[in-house]
Amino acid sequence: MSDTTRTGVTRKLARFVVESRWSSIPGTVKHEAKRALLNWAGCALGGCRDETVDTALAALAEFGGQPQATLLGRSERTDILSAAALNGLSSNILDFDDTHLRTVIHPTVPVAAAAIALAERWQVSGAQLMHAFILGVEIECRIGNAISPEHFVAGWHITSTCGIFGAAAACAKLLKLDAKKTAWALGIAASQATGTTGAHGSMTKSWNMANAARNGLVAALLAAKGFTSTEQALEGERGFTRVFAQRRDLDEIVRGLGGTWELAQNSYKPYPCGIVAHPAIDGCLMLRHETRIEPTAVEQIELRVHTLVRTLMGNAVPRTGLEAKLSVQHCAAAALVHGEVGVREFTDACVNDPAVVALRRRVILVEDPAMPKAAAHVAVRVSGSTLDKYVPHATGSLERPMSDEALERKFRSLARSGWPQCDSRAFIELAWSLDELTDAGAFARAAAPH
Amino acid sequence: MSDTTRTGVTRKLARFVVESRWSSIPGTVKHEAKRALLNWAGCALGGCRDETVDTALAALAEFGGQPQATLLGRSERTDILSAAALNGLSSNILDFDDTHLRTVIHPTVPVAAAAIALAERWQVSGAQLMHAFILGVEIECRIGNAISPEHFVAGWHITSTCGIFGAAAACAKLLKLDAKKTAWALGIAASQATGTTGAHGSMTKSWNMANAARNGLVAALLAAKGFTSTEQALEGERGFTRVFAQRRDLDEIVRGLGGTWELAQNSYKPYPCGIVAHPAIDGCLMLRHETRIEPTAVEQIELRVHTLVRTLMGNAVPRTGLEAKLSVQHCAAAALVHGEVGVREFTDACVNDPAVVALRRRVILVEDPAMPKAAAHVAVRVSGSTLDKYVPHATGSLERPMSDEALERKFRSLARSGWPQCDSRAFIELAWSLDELTDAGAFARAAAPH
Repeated sequence: MSDTTRTGVTRKLARFVVESRWSSIPGTVKHEAKRALLNWAGCALGGCRDETVDTALAALAEFGGQPQATLLGRSERTDILSAAALNGLSSNILDFDDTHLRTVIHPTVPVAAAAIALAERWQVSGAQLMHAFILGVEIECRIGNAISPEHFVAGWHITSTCGIFGAAAACAKLLKLDAKKTAWALGIAASQATGTTGAHGSMTKSWNMANAARNGLVAALLAAKGFTSTEQALEGERGFTRVFAQRRDLDEIVRGLGGTWELAQNSYKPYPCGIVAHPAIDGCLMLRHETRIEPTAVEQIELRVHTLVRTLMGNAVPRTGLEAKLSVQHCAAAALVHGEVGVREFTDACVNDPAVVALRRRVILVEDPAMPKAAAHVAVRVSGSTLDKYVPHATGSLERPMSDEALERKFRSLARSGWPQCDSRAFIELAWSLDELTDAGAFARAAAPH
Repeated sequence: MSDTTRTGVTRKLARFVVESRWSSIPGTVKHEAKRALLNWAGCALGGCRDETVDTALAALAEFGGQPQATLLGRSERTDILSAAALNGLSSNILDFDDTHLRTVIHPTVPVAAAAIALAERWQVSGAQLMHAFILGVEIECRIGNAISPEHFVAGWHITSTCGIFGAAAACAKLLKLDAKKTAWALGIAASQATGTTGAHGSMTKSWNMANAARNGLVAALLAAKGFTSTEQALEGERGFTRVFAQRRDLDEIVRGLGGTWELAQNSYKPYPCGIVAHPAIDGCLMLRHETRIEPTAVEQIELRVHTLVRTLMGNAVPRTGLEAKLSVQHCAAAALVHGEVGVREFTDACVNDPAVVALRRRVILVEDPAMPKAAAHVAVRVSGSTLDKYVPHATGSLERPMSDEALERKFRSLARSGWPQCDSRAFIELAWSLDELTDAGAFARAAAPH
């Protein structure tokens, strides 16, 4: 038994959350929190009118509670648990949210959806919200690190399985729970952790986010009232890392805690689909813009990619926008036809557009064991000659991060598509000054009609 | 790939649920449904005042919705989702609910809690409720059979992981969903299936039931409105039986479907604790009643048991009533001191009673690989001589089932402890004539103050 197992990683994490001080968070990490939350709000606005959100609301609204909290981009208000769920759903449905590349966790969705709903009910400042959010992401990603990649490979939707811990930790911080109750919150979260990748390509995929956000918040609320649980949620004999993963490195969960910050490893997507396809999309867009390829003249598109691309995004014949999000073939075809890959390229209309369908049929996927996960090689054969592009790192990667300005542009575009009346300039300003807000709930309220 | 995998067990189950007719259910199975629901209501009444339920209500009531449904034994009314959760919680907290012995699933809790909450909102007859309940238990236990015992041994709380499918199937039947939407309901259930045994001995254990009931109901409600999911929730490459279990027998899920009924294999507990301890408790009670052992004169109690008993119930020094439910040592000591093992024997007061503590210290647990799971051998040494008893099958087992009259007595005793004003005679009569009710909601309403 290692030292970490003996002393208890769950209790250590809980103490870390309780004892962390705002003043000890580096400025760069605080700024990254603002970037993450701005990007998250944009994704929620872009997704808030999606059929998925409408359907969930139609199914569950009559069982919801008092209008306590905001649904981003919508005029309906719901109880905070439903708001956590529905904002988690809307902010993930476009597949445009951020990514912690090492684990492929989308860190912000579950943590922000839970913490911001709670912030509308409890009076907390913008700095408190940011602090809780940063800690939640830290817990979520550290747990993910300890069981990656085996956990995801086994079929778990890691953003929801680990995200619920981040949501619980962030809400525990906002509720000012002590170390024991914070550990219980993690214990209750462990018993609700779930979500597989078995329903990807359907609405159910993003329902996993709704659950992670809502149930993480529930875990903290229960613990706050004294609902007991295990204090060894992660390392116990039947704890999360044992039941949910074939391999675990418990030391990794707490090594360097407070000295490094996982949020600093966050990345943002320029394209609303699975991130493993981004290098290939970059290559297609570059070829299209640099060479003015005529799509109808293309004879073949060869994508040489990491093996994970076929596993996660190898759907050669998508029929819907949701399915196309898991089709690198569609991404490549749409990139060459439209010269961009945004929300429009994942509508059912685009997926069934004859020009796109025709080109998609000409995509050949080559799995190359030697290809790094971050890279792709694209070769387009036009009139017998071949144009090609090697992309070592995609736009939005840590090596080529999206700038603050690029994130602002992304927000504006998403807001326009989901809630055209949004005063994007004012909201962006609010996001950059979030740490100065006395009432963090204002952040959510500014992202919806009054 | 087997024939079953090709044709899709999830779709087959869905079609079975849709096509099943009330007239095709055997009379013995219908009667067993009444026994199960009477026993369940008793457990809910016995548990409804438990601190666990009070704490959950205190934490979550302000986020609940309209008073649409009954909390058994309590005057509060909540939205149907909260009712499914809280009735699931209260009916499991005493560990007095029924058991499908092959899988150790407690089949009724998640299915009944979900279906009965829904029956208060949708107008359905008693027969429709019973039919949906029988089908839900069938789905739940067949999925459990296919992955037992590996799934439970790996740390999964099988009642919640499989129970959510039963809850979803029952609610899908009540909502009259077609086969595709029923399959979606199972898909949404799969993506919410969870619950480990890592927090057993704390309040969180029974929260797993709350989740299974609530989220199974949510799955059916979402599917009813067209929330899409996979139609291969069980057998898909990243389906439930693959992600949650090391071994699976997909054929077993559908073999003999409609010809055999898992509810016919149901058993009821005479003692409110883990069922693996029941043979040992029986032995202690028999010795106490047959020989009038004086507890203070006991020098040693040797329990020779199946190895699973230590794994599941080997806590030698329980400190609370909840912990004592996982202590066969406590059960044996309490049986000899009190001459019975009921709700009172799992109060904190009994656990810390010096007479019980002293005797508990004298219990020796011997794991015997040759001992059948259903059996136990008890040897009590008093004044140098040894009295012993071999119990091949405990009271409440399929070989020695509790009679209808014994279930009625159990109901009365539980009702007295949780809701003394209950008109037990009238409720028991209602339960035996459930198939004649025009409004199934009356069953829930009769189990609470007006």
